[in-house]
Amino acid sequence: MPINQQILLDNRPMGEAAASNFMLVSSDTPELKEGQVLVHHHFLSLDPYMRGRMSESKSYAAPQPLGQVMQGGTAGEVIESRSPKFEPGDKVVGMGGWQQYSVVDVDKADQPGALRKVDTTHVPLSHYLGAVGMPGVTAWYGLVKIIEPKVGQTITVSAASGAVGSALGALAKARGCRVVGVAGGPDKCAYVVNELGFDDCIDYREHGNALSLSSALQDACPDGVDGHFENVGGMVLDAVLPRMNAFGSVALCGMIAGYDGKPVPLTQPSLILLSRLKIQGFIVSEHMEVWPEALKELGALVGSGKLRPRESVAHGLENAPEAFLGLLKGRNFGKQLVKLI
Amino acid sequence: MPINQQILLDNRPMGEAAASNFMLVSSDTPELKEGQVLVHHHFLSLDPYMRGRMSESKSYAAPQPLGQVMQGGTAGEVIESRSPKFEPGDKVVGMGGWQQYSVVDVDKADQPGALRKVDTTHVPLSHYLGAVGMPGVTAWYGLVKIIEPKVGQTITVSAASGAVGSALGALAKARGCRVVGVAGGPDKCAYVVNELGFDDCIDYREHGNALSLSSALQDACPDGVDGHFENVGGMVLDAVLPRMNAFGSVALCGMIAGYDGKPVPLTQPSLILLSRLKIQGFIVSEHMEVWPEALKELGALVGSGKLRPRESVAHGLENAPEAFLGLLKGRNFGKQLVKLI
Repeated sequence: MPINQQILLDNRPMGEAAASNFMLVSSDTPELKEGQVLVHHHFLSLDPYMRGRMSESKSYAAPQPLGQVMQGGTAGEVIESRSPKFEPGDKVVGMGGWQQYSVVDVDKADQPGALRKVDTTHVPLSHYLGAVGMPGVTAWYGLVKIIEPKVGQTITVSAASGAVGSALGALAKARGCRVVGVAGGPDKCAYVVNELGFDDCIDYREHGNALSLSSALQDACPDGVDGHFENVGGMVLDAVLPRMNAFGSVALCGMIAGYDGKPVPLTQPSLILLSRLKIQGFIVSEHMEVWPEALKELGALVGSGKLRPRESVAHGLENAPEAFLGLLKGRNFGKQLVKLI
Repeated sequence: MPINQQILLDNRPMGEAAASNFMLVSSDTPELKEGQVLVHHHFLSLDPYMRGRMSESKSYAAPQPLGQVMQGGTAGEVIESRSPKFEPGDKVVGMGGWQQYSVVDVDKADQPGALRKVDTTHVPLSHYLGAVGMPGVTAWYGLVKIIEPKVGQTITVSAASGAVGSALGALAKARGCRVVGVAGGPDKCAYVVNELGFDDCIDYREHGNALSLSSALQDACPDGVDGHFENVGGMVLDAVLPRMNAFGSVALCGMIAGYDGKPVPLTQPSLILLSRLKIQGFIVSEHMEVWPEALKELGALVGSGKLRPRESVAHGLENAPEAFLGLLKGRNFGKQLVKLI
C-alpha cells in the first residue's frame, strides 16, 4: 500500500489561523476491508468554512478534532475497490480530507459528502469541487430557495470572483437579473465583468468604509438591490443593507470577516425592519435534497461556457496550509485548490 | 359644529423627541360633505412607530408632515353621518389622529386604517386599539406567519407586558408553546407571569449587559429558543441570538432603541449563519389580508379572559405628548392610550 502524506490539525488558532496550527505527517494506508475503496486524491478543496471548524467555539458543525486529518472535499480516482459500487479508474468526489489517499466505506453512501462518481467528459474533474460541487450548490440554494429572484431584479454578491460568487452570477443571469458583484482588486473585478458576465463589479478596496462602498453600490444599482448573497460579512453587508429595496432578501452563507474570533457587528440592523427584509443563514450540506437539481443546472452552465470558473491551484499537499491562509485573506482568485498529483 | 382640539407636529426632533416638537391648537370642525362622517374620539392610541414618522430619515412610511395633525389610531363614536354606511352611535376605530374629532371619507374604506364598526358587547372599546387591533394583529402576524411555532417550542418576546407582547404570549400559549418574556421592572414581570400566563419573565433592568441577560435567558429557556419576537432591538436582541436553536426565526417589528437617531448595532450577526436563523422585519399594515382571521382569534382570547391586556391611560389630549415620550422610555405599563372624553 502507498505511503500517505497527511495534514493534521495540531493546535487551535489563538486569533488568526497560522501555519503552525497544522502538522504534516506520513502514514501507511491500511489494507481495505470488504465494502471499502481506496481513493487517490487529485485535488483538495480549500474553503472558508474550514476556519470555523478549527475553533472550538459554537458552530454549526462539530469542531475539527485535534490530531486528526483536516476534513475537506477531494476529487480523485478510485485505485482499488472491495465494493461492487466502484471500480478502479472511477473518477470520484468526496470528503477525503487533507491527505493524498483516503479509504472510504462506500456503504455509508447517504451522508453529505459521501463518495460519488462524476463524469469528466464535459466538466473537468476539479470543477466538481467548485462550480459543479459544494460552492455551486451553495450559490444555487441561496439564490433559488432564499432570494427567489424575479426577472429584472437586481442581485448583488460579495466575493464575486470566488467559487460561490461566480456561480451565483451565472445562475442569476440565467434568471434574467441584473447582477452586480463586489470583489477585491481591479483584476478580479475585470474578470467578474468580462469573463463571468456580471453587469458591474465594485472593488471594495477602493472604499475605506461602508458609506463609500454603499454609495458606489447605489451608482451600480440604480433600481436598488432586491436580493443579496453574502459570502463575507462585515463592511460589504453594512454597505448593501441601505441599498436594499423593500421586501428584499439576504442569503447569508459566509461571515469570513468574523472567523478570527473578533465579532464583527452589523451596524444598522434597524434597516431589516425599515425595509422589511429577510436575512437567512444556511448551510448547503443540510439541504442535500436540492443537490441533484442544482448540479444539473450548474453542469449545463459550465458545459455551455456560460459559467467559466477560475481556479487558484497550489501544488503539493505540503503547501495546503499556506494556500488556505491566503484564501482567508482573499489572496486566491477563484476556487482555491491544491493539486496533489 | 364642535371646537376641535388638535396636536400638530411643529418641528422634528434633533436626537430625542421632546414635548416642544408638538403644538396644541384649536379649530372648527368643518361641515360634513356627502359620504363623510364625524367621529368623536374616545381614545387615542400611542405607539412606538410614531417616533419613526416624526423624523425625515428613510422609513417604511412617509414622514409625518410638519404643521399637520399627528397621525394615529383612534376609537370613538360616530356623532353625525352623511353616509348610509354609518349611523350616529356606531362605535368605530380608525386613524383619526391626535385630535378630539375627525371627519372621515368613508368611501375610502379599503385602505389600512379605514373606519370600521366594532362590537363592544364583549370587548371594551379601548381594546380595539390594542389586543384586538393593530398591536394584536402585529403579534399574530409575526408569530403565525414568520415564527410558525410548533407545540412544545420555546418562544421569547421583548416588551412582554406591552400591547404586542401580551398578545404574543396568549397566542403562543394557545399553540402549546413555552413562552418567556423580557420586560422592565419587577411589577411588569409579575404581571407577565401571573396575569398573562407566561412561563417566565426576565427583568432586563437587573442585567447590565447582553451577556448577563443572555445567561438569564439560558436559565429560563433550558431547551433553547425556537422563535423570538422582537419589539425593542439592542441589548435584548443581542442577548437572545446566542440562545436561538438551529433554524430558529426572529420576527422583527420594533427597534425602539434606535429611534433617537443613533444606530444600535447587532453585535454578533455571525450567529445568523452559525444557527441558520431567519430574521425578518415586517409592518402589519402591509398585510391587511390577515386582519380578519387574526382579529377573530384575538377577540376570542380577550372575550374568554385568556388575554387580559393592561392599559396605561393618560387623560386629556393636552397630555398626549408627555404620555408618548414616556412610552418611548418604557414608562407605560401595557397599551398606552389617551382618554379624550
